[in-house]
Amino acid sequence: MRAAIAGASGYAGGELLRLLLGHPEFEIGALTAASSAGNRLGTHQPHLFRLADRVIEETTADTLAGHDVVFLALPHGHSAAVASQLGEETIVVDCGADHRLAGPAAWQEFYGGQHAGTWPYGLPELPGQREVLRKATRIAVPGCYPTSVLLALSPAFAAGLAAPDVVVVAASGTSGAGKSLKPNLLGSEVMGSVSAYGVGGVHRHTPEMEQGLSAVAGEPVRVSFTPTLAPMSRGILATCSAPAAPGVTKASLRTAYEVALKDEPFVSLLPEGVWPATAMTYGANTAALQVTLDERAGRVIAVIAIDNLTKGTAGGAIQSVNLALGLPEELGLPLTGVAP
Amino acid sequence: MRAAIAGASGYAGGELLRLLLGHPEFEIGALTAASSAGNRLGTHQPHLFRLADRVIEETTADTLAGHDVVFLALPHGHSAAVASQLGEETIVVDCGADHRLAGPAAWQEFYGGQHAGTWPYGLPELPGQREVLRKATRIAVPGCYPTSVLLALSPAFAAGLAAPDVVVVAASGTSGAGKSLKPNLLGSEVMGSVSAYGVGGVHRHTPEMEQGLSAVAGEPVRVSFTPTLAPMSRGILATCSAPAAPGVTKASLRTAYEVALKDEPFVSLLPEGVWPATAMTYGANTAALQVTLDERAGRVIAVIAIDNLTKGTAGGAIQSVNLALGLPEELGLPLTGVAP
Amino acid sequence: MRAAIAGASGYAGGELLRLLLGHPEFEIGALTAASSAGNRLGTHQPHLFRLADRVIEETTADTLAGHDVVFLALPHGHSAAVASQLGEETIVVDCGADHRLAGPAAWQEFYGGQHAGTWPYGLPELPGQREVLRKATRIAVPGCYPTSVLLALSPAFAAGLAAPDVVVVAASGTSGAGKSLKPNLLGSEVMGSVSAYGVGGVHRHTPEMEQGLSAVAGEPVRVSFTPTLAPMSRGILATCSAPAAPGVTKASLRTAYEVALKDEPFVSLLPEGVWPATAMTYGANTAALQVTLDERAGRVIAVIAIDNLTKGTAGGAIQSVNLALGLPEELGLPLTGVAP
Amino acid sequence: MRAAIAGASGYAGGELLRLLLGHPEFEIGALTAASSAGNRLGTHQPHLFRLADRVIEETTADTLAGHDVVFLALPHGHSAAVASQLGEETIVVDCGADHRLAGPAAWQEFYGGQHAGTWPYGLPELPGQREVLRKATRIAVPGCYPTSVLLALSPAFAAGLAAPDVVVVAASGTSGAGKSLKPNLLGSEVMGSVSAYGVGGVHRHTPEMEQGLSAVAGEPVRVSFTPTLAPMSRGILATCSAPAAPGVTKASLRTAYEVALKDEPFVSLLPEGVWPATAMTYGANTAALQVTLDERAGRVIAVIAIDNLTKGTAGGAIQSVNLALGLPEELGLPLTGVAP
Repeated sequence: MRAAIAGASGYAGGELLRLLLGHPEFEIGALTAASSAGNRLGTHQPHLFRLADRVIEETTADTLAGHDVVFLALPHGHSAAVASQLGEETIVVDCGADHRLAGPAAWQEFYGGQHAGTWPYGLPELPGQREVLRKATRIAVPGCYPTSVLLALSPAFAAGLAAPDVVVVAASGTSGAGKSLKPNLLGSEVMGSVSAYGVGGVHRHTPEMEQGLSAVAGEPVRVSFTPTLAPMSRGILATCSAPAAPGVTKASLRTAYEVALKDEPFVSLLPEGVWPATAMTYGANTAALQVTLDERAGRVIAVIAIDNLTKGTAGGAIQSVNLALGLPEELGLPLTGVAP
Repeated sequence: MRAAIAGASGYAGGELLRLLLGHPEFEIGALTAASSAGNRLGTHQPHLFRLADRVIEETTADTLAGHDVVFLALPHGHSAAVASQLGEETIVVDCGADHRLAGPAAWQEFYGGQHAGTWPYGLPELPGQREVLRKATRIAVPGCYPTSVLLALSPAFAAGLAAPDVVVVAASGTSGAGKSLKPNLLGSEVMGSVSAYGVGGVHRHTPEMEQGLSAVAGEPVRVSFTPTLAPMSRGILATCSAPAAPGVTKASLRTAYEVALKDEPFVSLLPEGVWPATAMTYGANTAALQVTLDERAGRVIAVIAIDNLTKGTAGGAIQSVNLALGLPEELGLPLTGVAP
Repeated sequence: MRAAIAGASGYAGGELLRLLLGHPEFEIGALTAASSAGNRLGTHQPHLFRLADRVIEETTADTLAGHDVVFLALPHGHSAAVASQLGEETIVVDCGADHRLAGPAAWQEFYGGQHAGTWPYGLPELPGQREVLRKATRIAVPGCYPTSVLLALSPAFAAGLAAPDVVVVAASGTSGAGKSLKPNLLGSEVMGSVSAYGVGGVHRHTPEMEQGLSAVAGEPVRVSFTPTLAPMSRGILATCSAPAAPGVTKASLRTAYEVALKDEPFVSLLPEGVWPATAMTYGANTAALQVTLDERAGRVIAVIAIDNLTKGTAGGAIQSVNLALGLPEELGLPLTGVAP
Repeated sequence: MRAAIAGASGYAGGELLRLLLGHPEFEIGALTAASSAGNRLGTHQPHLFRLADRVIEETTADTLAGHDVVFLALPHGHSAAVASQLGEETIVVDCGADHRLAGPAAWQEFYGGQHAGTWPYGLPELPGQREVLRKATRIAVPGCYPTSVLLALSPAFAAGLAAPDVVVVAASGTSGAGKSLKPNLLGSEVMGSVSAYGVGGVHRHTPEMEQGLSAVAGEPVRVSFTPTLAPMSRGILATCSAPAAPGVTKASLRTAYEVALKDEPFVSLLPEGVWPATAMTYGANTAALQVTLDERAGRVIAVIAIDNLTKGTAGGAIQSVNLALGLPEELGLPLTGVAP
């Protein structure tokens, strides 16, 4: 299989390449970008030694044509125009936001402009979603925060153990903001500091969380989401809570999660008493999850760690592509984090 | 004024000494500790160049006698025995947990054993608390997390703008755990990683938050608190939310905070649109605070940054001592963080 | 092939397991340790999800018997007793220091006590060393710092381009110090701080560097080595210099390195003008190397980055074992770092 | 005294302001900058709460006129034009490079273009330099790296204990590179990584080191300097070595340093066996220094830690201004680092 990567000079593009270099069924085809077209890849991704001399091309339909899979790691608003020129014989995977939301209303409110349409949502762990992805030729990779929140709370909502009034506070590594030259992303600013941003229901991943959880719950779920930036390159730790349904106990909660996750290759429900750390998942496609009941406050508390670039973006994308291609879901994906 | 520090080899003790070295009204008397007694201070606090050759003594009533102020920075359970041997002519400041809680019930539940009694609570920003502290000879320094949460939400509860169902997720630097030799506090483990701990209503600072907020609100306030450990030495960023009372608007919320905080020397309500980062407060006694209304989710969201060792422990302690001694409240306390 | 790991609860042991989990020719046999024997591996290596329930055994000849390869990741002084009970049909790989030095004199000076004897040195990149390792049943894995320095300067000394008066200053991540519960290794101490240690020719890796470089140079090489601790979990950046031999030019130096390294799978000579960063090699078995001539000062300057746990310990060990087993040298070893 | 700061939105400007806010003899006058003129200071320096509403003006002779002291924290090449319009009644302090070098030759080689002339060098610890600064109305603040190297090696060269063939490898925090929007300074790139840059005798601070050490030694000193970037916001750790002169012993070396430094308020010679860490000096104007003899390699090894923004820039500037104004040299300058 030949794969092209549009947006090869960014962080998502680099992670796709790192993983595809270790995937037995892929060879790496065209690498494209916008402002860095014409440069060697080594200038932008110095850790990809084996691809250092590959030259980045312009992102056009021509350069992307003739591949079995095209990964789009582009700023939002740029995917639809590219995808429309690629036929259904090509699997197109959008790592951006353009095709995640189910309808134009939330798109308008949070992104503005014309909605590009909805694609199959690339989170195989959602109920029924593996079947959808096995036939897909277009895949919308979930946002990194929604990946974490949907994995953390779906078992509770699927089992009817939580009320639809969710509070999420999540810490993300800086790579989640991309390779953007903004003062607040400079090393001098982020090291030694945790900061909040996008507070008050305005972060664009909020409607995606509500959409996914509402589908699982079978009723509208409201999410209050506060993202924070932590002094690390990678990783998301999301603390997710909701009022416990009447009668829920610690034991019933644990059992529901064990049942829901027992066959999931990429979600590790930790032993009781062990809480997730993002380091457990560094560079791996695995989520580390724990859940408990706060009996004083009457809330289900689920905490999850993922690597935002791996399970949260590039690894999740390849996992869905594996399904779409009829390959083993785990093929080529690291299960073990690089720690300490 | 002569000050003694019991627990001089730990992080709280070191921060007390750093601040007292810059305080014009204090000279530093006895330095005591347990296992490090007999060592030079420079072995344990190499940044305190000017005190490097001072010898640490045993923590006894004798070594602590004869000082105007005695700061106790001891593990919980050790303060009462020491304090009982110091007369009322000595101001005793407990940086530990022993005398914070108003009654034995919460102490029993969260710490176990006999409650040592309640001392005046060293958070001058709470309504009416300055007057209490001006006459105090015993002061219980608040926990670092409760300091942050009480500063963040008191204005909302005092103004009746929030319902008593609070969710707090806070990230702390590792110095909050003290100089404990535990594997999970090793640099190799914490760098590049955010982790959760004490989840599910079991962290010992929970009843202290509930006690303080309930007093301000005039009704019982329930707090669901999840602490996380972030890869930084110092700082707490607490994201605190509660359902908005009916009719609350962004403007009314902002106004309530502006009114409540306009004369507070150590709480900085940030300009609208600017969110706190712990780096703003590094080494300073100042809290950086912002508040908004999440209209979608119907929640008041207050985010606050403090330095857990300064405003959260040693600086807050000295601020209360300044009041107790009739000195200007701000004397000797840094207002400006060391950034970037 | 079945592999046993002695010292499975430490950082080197954990990295061996991470790599062996991804190696197609190995299954993981006995896991042993000292004080953590009896615990589940998940308690000590929470990132190794797939091995979480494996129970750690005591390090004895019995538990280690019956494996094709035994990796020893033990404190120095403990390997010889274990190895002596394992027959030559077992490949024994010592990740500790016991069998690296060529003679008892340097061992006495730097470690003290009886020297355990010299084993084939596991650095295939040294001249002629691949042939030695292809027949080896005992392998001494080099120290992490010597790995970096020998890779960085061997091409210069082999080509006669440098005088034998070397100065090395290296920064290491904290995992190089192991999972030791020492105050100076706490996260609070190391984050935001670079510190020196072992200064003045006393670090135990010094004679190993001199031994290796002297063999390559064909004359005694003297090394002044200063290690420093940097605020990162993994990685070594070593800045190595020596007086340039008469007549050396930038071009002749570059050519010598290109020739020496052109077939090395795990040493990447970076494009001219690009300097190594440890992030390029995070979790990979690859070294990133650059060299130049300081014409003002008349010195050859080589800078190298490795991951101390991968190429510097566990990856280097497996690379040598691949050779000893007649497998492809690169089998199962990651070539690409996890970045950013 | 009224002080103006040109370049108030950058890191050096911010540190000058932090220190001047705590200085009893200064009030803060005009704040100027280039591209950020017109903005409130709070936008660029959110930690300077008390100055948040001050508006940044254009850097012109008019805005800077009428102050007792003008601090210039501008990119190199911009200071001379500004300074020429300020009379000798104003003390002008150049935190940039323009007036550090003694002659045009080194300026041409390392910076290019016309040399702006030489000002009194603001390092009071150099022999005789306090007297020069007491009469100065123009002060060239040393570079951060030269500050560290000159403090570390001057005692050895002044006492004739080292040969003039110096090797320096230094690690710097990222604030040393300023608030520049470059990809390699993004948090995602620098966290978890140490990297080399400016290798091979090309860093612009090299001739400044050679100039200073040569003056102390009374003969030409050659410096091979390799800077590295470490994952921390602040701090320099410089490892400096030179061949020991014949007959030097550890004791004679220690004595020379003790004698040279015994009255220096801002250089702390650490107790024997304790090695510097940048954390000791975080936010302080103090340098932490240690020296030893590597008897095997025959080299004097001095290691020093400073805060690049405090002693390395803004604190050093104020120290020199204190002298020029006839104030106590230590006035308003923090002696104690913020640690841990």
